[in-house]
Amino acid sequence: MTSDNRAPVTVVGLGSMGSALAKSFVAEGHPTTVWNRTPEKADDLVAAGAVRAASAAEAVAASELVVVCVLDYHAMRELFDPLGDALSGRTVVNLTSGTPEEAREAAEWAAERGFDYVDGAIMAVPPMIGSEEALIFYGGPKAVYDAHSASLATIAGAGTYLGEDVGLPSLYDVALLGLMWTTWAGFMQSLALVKSENVAAAAFLPYAQAWFEHVVSPEVPGIAGQVDAGDYPDEGSALGMQAIAIEHLVDASRAQGVDAALPEFLRQRAQEAIKRGHAGSGFGALFEVLRKPE
Amino acid sequence: MTSDNRAPVTVVGLGSMGSALAKSFVAEGHPTTVWNRTPEKADDLVAAGAVRAASAAEAVAASELVVVCVLDYHAMRELFDPLGDALSGRTVVNLTSGTPEEAREAAEWAAERGFDYVDGAIMAVPPMIGSEEALIFYGGPKAVYDAHSASLATIAGAGTYLGEDVGLPSLYDVALLGLMWTTWAGFMQSLALVKSENVAAAAFLPYAQAWFEHVVSPEVPGIAGQVDAGDYPDEGSALGMQAIAIEHLVDASRAQGVDAALPEFLRQRAQEAIKRGHAGSGFGALFEVLRKPE
Repeated sequence: MTSDNRAPVTVVGLGSMGSALAKSFVAEGHPTTVWNRTPEKADDLVAAGAVRAASAAEAVAASELVVVCVLDYHAMRELFDPLGDALSGRTVVNLTSGTPEEAREAAEWAAERGFDYVDGAIMAVPPMIGSEEALIFYGGPKAVYDAHSASLATIAGAGTYLGEDVGLPSLYDVALLGLMWTTWAGFMQSLALVKSENVAAAAFLPYAQAWFEHVVSPEVPGIAGQVDAGDYPDEGSALGMQAIAIEHLVDASRAQGVDAALPEFLRQRAQEAIKRGHAGSGFGALFEVLRKPE
Repeated sequence: MTSDNRAPVTVVGLGSMGSALAKSFVAEGHPTTVWNRTPEKADDLVAAGAVRAASAAEAVAASELVVVCVLDYHAMRELFDPLGDALSGRTVVNLTSGTPEEAREAAEWAAERGFDYVDGAIMAVPPMIGSEEALIFYGGPKAVYDAHSASLATIAGAGTYLGEDVGLPSLYDVALLGLMWTTWAGFMQSLALVKSENVAAAAFLPYAQAWFEHVVSPEVPGIAGQVDAGDYPDEGSALGMQAIAIEHLVDASRAQGVDAALPEFLRQRAQEAIKRGHAGSGFGALFEVLRKPE
C-alpha cells in the first residue's frame, strides 16, 4: 500500500506515548494531524511531516479517526466537551489508561454526543509502538473497529479485538499489569529475605530463575483450568499442609525484619480458603477467596 | 559403585517425604534403617529391604548418618532429647521444614549434645526424590557435609551446599516458596478480575503467558542487579507514573467486587517508595520498602 492509500489520522495528546503513536502513523504515510495542549510538544512530529492543528476542534475536523492518549478520562472529556458536535460521525479510539468503569462511562458519553467510540489499552512501552510485537487491546462495536483496523495495525502489529465490551481492554490491562507488579514484588520480597543474611541477589537469582521455569510457570495453565472448572484438586500438596509452610514464611519474614505484609496476605487467604472447606484442596482454591472476598 | 560400598543410613520420620527419602536410599543399595512413631508406616519400606528399628535409640545407633524428616523442629527435639548421648559423634541431616531461626537453634542444641548437624530444605515433591533434578539445599560445617555428600547425592541429584550458615537452606526455601505462592496469587488475582466479566481463564491464559515470557520474566535479572547496586533507574516508566496505573488496578478490583488487598498492598508500597524519594525511580525501588518496612 502506498502512502496515498493511508487514511488520515488525528492524534490528540502528545506525551511520550501519544508522540510515539503519531510518529508511527507519520512514518507509515498516514496524513497525520496532531494536537497537544502545549503546542511545542508537536515540534518534532511537524518536522517529520505531521500537521499541527491550531485547536482541538481543528484537530478532530481533520480526520474521521481520532486517536486519543491523554492523562486520564477526565482530561479527555474536558478537551472534547466544549467542541459541541464537532466529533459527530467520527470515531474516537481512546488509548488513555483507566478502569473498565471509566471506559463504559466514556462509551455512554460518546453515544450521547453522536460519535463512535472504541476503547483501547496499550500493553507496550513507547519504543515498541509500530512494531509487529506491540500489543494493544481493543473493545467496542465490531463494525467500527473493523472500519479502522487497517489504520490501527500501523501502531501495533499485535493489536487484538476483545469484543463489544468497551470495558475489557482496561480490565485485561490492569489484570496483566497486576500480574507483573505482583510477580516482581514477590521476587523482591524473596530478595529482601536473602539480602537480610547478606546473600547477593545475583547469587539467589539462578535458583529463582530455575524455580520459576521448572516449578512456578508449569503450574499456571493447570491453575487456569482449575479456576474454570471450579475444582481445585490437591496435587500432592494439600492447602492444609502448605499453610504450615506459609507460616514459616511469615515467621521468617518477621524474624529477618523484612516486610511481612505479603506473606501475611498469603497466610490469611490460605486460612480463609481452609475455613471454606479447602484444607484438602490445592493452592488454586485461593481463587475462591480472591474472587469473592469475605 | 556396588551396594557394598554404600554407607548405612537411618531415616527418622516416614511421612510421604520421609518415606520417599528412605525408598530412594534402599533403591540405591544403602543399608537403610527406618523409624516412625507409627511403626506400620515402615511396612512397604521393610518389604523393599529396609530394617525397621524397634526404637528411636536403635535407629540412631544403626548408622553414622541420620536423616530426619518429621513434622517440625519441636517434634525432632521431643524425639531425640530422651536418647541421652545416643547421637554423640553422629551426624543429623535435618530435612524437616522450618525457619532459619529454628535451624540455628537446632544447631546449638546439637552442639550441646555432641553431634554434628546439617540443616537442609527439600525443594521437591516426594515423587521427585532420587532424581537428578531433585534439589535439596544444605547448610552447616563443610567437613561434615563433605563426609556425607556421596550418600546425600542418592536422594537429590541437584543437592546444593550453600555454606556454613545452617539458616540459609530454610531461608532459600521460604524465599522460593514465597515467590511461587505470590506469583500464583497474582495470576489468580488477575483471573478474578477477568472472570468477574465472565471471561474464561482459558481465554485470558495465552495473554498472561505471553506477557510473562516477553515482559515479566526478562526484567527479573535487571531487578536483581538493581537490588545489588542499590540503584533503581527509571527505564522508561517512572514509579510516579506507574503509581497512577496501580490506582487503576485498585479501583478496578473494588469496582469488580474482587479482593483488593493485593492491589492495595502494591499501592501502599509504591506510595511509600515515592515518599522516600523514588518517584523518578523504576519499580525496583519497592525493594527498599520491602527490605526495611516503615
